[in-house]
Amino acid sequence: MSNAQPLTELSADQLAAFRQEQQAAYETLKSSGLKLDLTRGKPSAQQLDLSNGLLQLPTSYVDAAGTDTRNYGGLQGIAQLREIFAELLWVEPEQVVAGGNSSLTMMRDTLYYLMLSGGVDSPRPWAQEEKVRFICPVPGYDRHHTLLESLGIEMLTVPMQADGPDADAVAALVADDPTIKGIWIVPTYSNPAGAVCSQEVAAKLASMPTAAPDFKIFWDNAYAFHHLTQDEAKSADVLSLASAAGHPNRPIMFASTSKITFAGAGVGFLAASVEQVKWYLGHLGKGSIGPDKINQLRHAEFFGDADGVRKHMRGHRDIIAPKFAEVQRILRQRLGGKGVATWTDPIGGYFVSLDVIPGTASRVVQLAKDAGIALTPAGASYPYGNDPDDTNIRLAPTFPVAEEVTAAMEAVATCVLLAAAEKLAG
Amino acid sequence: MSNAQPLTELSADQLAAFRQEQQAAYETLKSSGLKLDLTRGKPSAQQLDLSNGLLQLPTSYVDAAGTDTRNYGGLQGIAQLREIFAELLWVEPEQVVAGGNSSLTMMRDTLYYLMLSGGVDSPRPWAQEEKVRFICPVPGYDRHHTLLESLGIEMLTVPMQADGPDADAVAALVADDPTIKGIWIVPTYSNPAGAVCSQEVAAKLASMPTAAPDFKIFWDNAYAFHHLTQDEAKSADVLSLASAAGHPNRPIMFASTSKITFAGAGVGFLAASVEQVKWYLGHLGKGSIGPDKINQLRHAEFFGDADGVRKHMRGHRDIIAPKFAEVQRILRQRLGGKGVATWTDPIGGYFVSLDVIPGTASRVVQLAKDAGIALTPAGASYPYGNDPDDTNIRLAPTFPVAEEVTAAMEAVATCVLLAAAEKLAG
Repeated sequence: MSNAQPLTELSADQLAAFRQEQQAAYETLKSSGLKLDLTRGKPSAQQLDLSNGLLQLPTSYVDAAGTDTRNYGGLQGIAQLREIFAELLWVEPEQVVAGGNSSLTMMRDTLYYLMLSGGVDSPRPWAQEEKVRFICPVPGYDRHHTLLESLGIEMLTVPMQADGPDADAVAALVADDPTIKGIWIVPTYSNPAGAVCSQEVAAKLASMPTAAPDFKIFWDNAYAFHHLTQDEAKSADVLSLASAAGHPNRPIMFASTSKITFAGAGVGFLAASVEQVKWYLGHLGKGSIGPDKINQLRHAEFFGDADGVRKHMRGHRDIIAPKFAEVQRILRQRLGGKGVATWTDPIGGYFVSLDVIPGTASRVVQLAKDAGIALTPAGASYPYGNDPDDTNIRLAPTFPVAEEVTAAMEAVATCVLLAAAEKLAG
Repeated sequence: MSNAQPLTELSADQLAAFRQEQQAAYETLKSSGLKLDLTRGKPSAQQLDLSNGLLQLPTSYVDAAGTDTRNYGGLQGIAQLREIFAELLWVEPEQVVAGGNSSLTMMRDTLYYLMLSGGVDSPRPWAQEEKVRFICPVPGYDRHHTLLESLGIEMLTVPMQADGPDADAVAALVADDPTIKGIWIVPTYSNPAGAVCSQEVAAKLASMPTAAPDFKIFWDNAYAFHHLTQDEAKSADVLSLASAAGHPNRPIMFASTSKITFAGAGVGFLAASVEQVKWYLGHLGKGSIGPDKINQLRHAEFFGDADGVRKHMRGHRDIIAPKFAEVQRILRQRLGGKGVATWTDPIGGYFVSLDVIPGTASRVVQLAKDAGIALTPAGASYPYGNDPDDTNIRLAPTFPVAEEVTAAMEAVATCVLLAAAEKLAG
């Protein structure tokens, strides 16, 4: 069908006609007064409703260990909750810290400690190094990038592939350059590509020689349990791999319940070697007398055990999988075969990564904005907001209700087609 | 009565007899198998019970502004709660940040931002200065000191007087020394002396010339509403004073509900000039998507308004004032007139500061420990744990139940008398 003909194969006249068609469609879109938002990986109200039981918990303020959770103390977080997430993350409870409402803040704190004091294996505080650099697989998570940038940590990029970061590229970079102190990875259902870091890639990263003695893998497992299908990806066991390779303090794992229970009122987790947990708590203890243990107990009671978490996540899947399917349906139907875009079809996580014709991502985002559709700024998935090919757009379909996903994606498709036609018409 | 005769006026024989008497009393004490703790300024279970209503709140997850508090966002904290504490702290709601469960962590974060990036008025990040120093009024709060020490910030001391830090001494230090970047003050019912910083002292600190352009007053108003009598001290309005003196960004105020509601699950607050709040949020936003708004809403609902907080604090007073009275009774009865100790009789806060004969504080703490009474380590109220006169002991009577306070204080008195007799006997 002509509808699926690649735009590059159209004659000049055909392309002009196609462009006019898309322009007309876009004008109609613009006049329809939409106000939609596909920018942020936020759970929808319906998803949040799954956790409303938390609002009546805890039933008692005394935890399983007999601690009055209302008072100060317990820097590492309550064992009752650490046990549940230790099982889910395949680590021991003593390797887990349960913190406040944000794993991003725990990552930030870890970076601050490294900057101001250095790690367990650092020759000096990172702030005293002439230069500190980090590897960022791209496309990646903008908040990782802005945090590194705010600390003056330079970013190098490697491609994020279907099985995780390009491990050979990473190994080549870190082998001789002691200024490269770390890599930040979303290993499971990566933001935004939905990639799952394989056991092989994880093993390479865990064992590769690094010029920096204190090289860190920030293993941000934000979507570890966020399956969209019954084909549930298992996160690579990076702590065991690193330990076996003689680098027990290389990885630091992070996770949270932000996209499990309440985005703003969940519990963040850090997991690492026992030595590194001790290091983290040593620094944490200088500025904290303990986390909100009541909220931790609230969560432990709500889940009951690790299976409680797994079961709860199926409730999320039932709500958001249809939205992801709708994104796929519209992309396939509107853009399939046109040679103007490729996109991911993730089996978990919160995003679809859309690659449009190089040089048109910003134009697509602008067109969408003018038509009332907020998209994540083009380039947002790249350090310094700089997508060198201006090709990547991150789509986040969880927050809008289903009809809005449909309307927004139809609009996105129109914008992609119009931008492509403009580009090809030169 | 001979019982109240200063020990220094005793003859050698009398002193020897006195010492023997105290030694016997101490042996009895030791054999009575006590296990008591006067170390930490923690609320008692009975105080925590005052806030158990929180466990059933919030009744709705939507705040007064219509925000779904379950989701991400709202970096500054919900207006509904900021309004209540703005009124209590005499500032505008836009000057207040409502954070997580710890104002200590907000102070730490502020220091981190200053170290890594510098303040609104800093020529460079503090970490890039050759030397950074802070003034610590003594006796003071050990956690302030350990935090500064962990960041390599040197500490200078000035005396904490009944009306606040010795402002003339402070002014003399900061006038010509640009390495002195700040002072940390507990202005109301100070830890441990119970001093209240007067409007005059606050005005001097707010207006004094400082060699450092980015000099900061960390105004840790942890006990602002923690009155022990109906003579309720009003905190000096340091933000207005500094603003009027042309130094709007000099003070940063901190407060929290840790000793109002639940010590581990309260809400911390920061208040400053609007410009400085913007600076703080700019840094905070690099590593946080927002605080636990549900816990903030829980608190806003619980209090209702500022008067709700004031009323709630009278419940605390009713519980802890008798404990403080018991401390005074025993100190007066056992040590009064003996010339071996002086102590504060605070009208608010969490502590009694006991000064024993110079050179005997460590000995008192050791004797107490051996008899099963945990006291805060001697010197804990001084930077680097170094009380040059070995004279100060911090007593924290809120956590134990009333009978324990009595038993512990009787024991402390015995230890003070024995240590004094030992010392005077040479």
